[in-house]
Amino acid sequence: MTGTGFSPLTPQPYPSPREFKLSERAIGIFDSGVGGLTVLRELRRRLPYEELVYLGDTARVPYGTKSPQTVARYAREAARFLVGQQVKLLVVACNTASAVALDELAAIHRLPVVGVIEPGARGALAATRTGRIGVIGTEGTVRSRAYERALRAGNPAVEVFAAACPLFVPLAEEGWADHEIARLAAAEYLAPLLREQIDTLVLGCTHYPLLKRTLQELVGPEVTLIDSAEETAKTVAGLLAAQGLTHGPAAPGLPRYFVTDAAERFERVGGAFLGAPLVDVATVTLD
Amino acid sequence: MTGTGFSPLTPQPYPSPREFKLSERAIGIFDSGVGGLTVLRELRRRLPYEELVYLGDTARVPYGTKSPQTVARYAREAARFLVGQQVKLLVVACNTASAVALDELAAIHRLPVVGVIEPGARGALAATRTGRIGVIGTEGTVRSRAYERALRAGNPAVEVFAAACPLFVPLAEEGWADHEIARLAAAEYLAPLLREQIDTLVLGCTHYPLLKRTLQELVGPEVTLIDSAEETAKTVAGLLAAQGLTHGPAAPGLPRYFVTDAAERFERVGGAFLGAPLVDVATVTLD
Repeated sequence: MTGTGFSPLTPQPYPSPREFKLSERAIGIFDSGVGGLTVLRELRRRLPYEELVYLGDTARVPYGTKSPQTVARYAREAARFLVGQQVKLLVVACNTASAVALDELAAIHRLPVVGVIEPGARGALAATRTGRIGVIGTEGTVRSRAYERALRAGNPAVEVFAAACPLFVPLAEEGWADHEIARLAAAEYLAPLLREQIDTLVLGCTHYPLLKRTLQELVGPEVTLIDSAEETAKTVAGLLAAQGLTHGPAAPGLPRYFVTDAAERFERVGGAFLGAPLVDVATVTLD
Repeated sequence: MTGTGFSPLTPQPYPSPREFKLSERAIGIFDSGVGGLTVLRELRRRLPYEELVYLGDTARVPYGTKSPQTVARYAREAARFLVGQQVKLLVVACNTASAVALDELAAIHRLPVVGVIEPGARGALAATRTGRIGVIGTEGTVRSRAYERALRAGNPAVEVFAAACPLFVPLAEEGWADHEIARLAAAEYLAPLLREQIDTLVLGCTHYPLLKRTLQELVGPEVTLIDSAEETAKTVAGLLAAQGLTHGPAAPGLPRYFVTDAAERFERVGGAFLGAPLVDVATVTLD
């Protein structure tokens, strides 16, 4: 309250200056690395007036091969940093962290917390005609069965077939998403799901939208791809509107980017995920 | 000294009980994950009587995409843990950590510290006839130019051509080292080195020995592959012999394995690197 003339002990019949400006606060987004930039990109497209703050935990990336306990600890530290940036809503733009830490983060912090799994599951349930849904993601996401739970919570009759695709993240980061190597890897990983005649495929990792073209060619036009990034942006837009927290119309500042390590690599690799050049990335320490 | 009857303040004209048993102490080995198990495997082959303690920093794996400062911090923490296990010699079985932290670790701890880069460079210098040497490794190792420095220190006339191969680690961990995907990725990565007509190729990452067959087929019989794991085991054997620290002949215990996360995955994936089943992996916290 320094400089406002308010004492925190004075009863305040009207909303405090901080609350007045809640809608003007930024949306905080975090991921283990560059993948969540696909979510930030969709948020910018759908909510062009919002301020955005992004945190990539690049000192400890990836989360997908780590234990639920460790991922939950990393997620708590990342969330604490973004809450310290005075955000009005937190997006966990990482499937692995959403799978294991979402409830805990929502319980700790007094602000809306949106993960990428429930939006993706909702999108898949809306799209499927046969009820046979495929899910691809990291080892951690698949092992957590979080998509299966979310899908069955929405419709207990659906059948869910999941596959971990560890090569997809390095392929996307290497810029090889449309390379023959990506096609071969996709064919290996998806063969069991295609044998199950899925009609919907959830891209359960924020890196995977870069592989959309390769995946769509492989699975054919009859299978609908669900991009969690798009679905998550829809969910955030709906939530802000419902709570009267939408910002604008007024031009926002540029998104602010923080990483926990190797800012130069984040800028170089992240551009493809953002679909735009990435600059002025600051490095912070969480642990 | 608890329980020995010695006071640490009493002058000791003879070696203390601790020093008497120095040769019986274990060799400590650390890597960011499973890759260093290829080094442990060669150590067991060459030094069958030595006790071995292995630490995989799986909570923060991989090191290869992280900054030198962060890798050095992780390496310090890993080394401190192993020194706490009373090892007589420390092997930094990770090229990225060897590249950025070896001198610092040797300065901090009063015991021999062996990295994988100098042994690999020595092996390459002994093998090359044309002086045209290729080096493949992680982004961090290649960016550090540590192999180039070590090679030129041994022979300023050699020419060094390096390439980062980020797909090789996940390919090896996925069990796809002999898959068509690995052949295609290797062809992409090595094309520039083969154009330079290298006659020697250093496998500058402890994961890469798993890809030996695929790489040898690609580069042809005229190119000699240098396996840093083998070279490092040779160096350690020579160092122990020179310092009178070799243990045995007496059957050692089984190697002890520690990880900082996801012990089950380490056991599952690590078997292929060790060439044997991997059990009883304990989890510890470093940070």
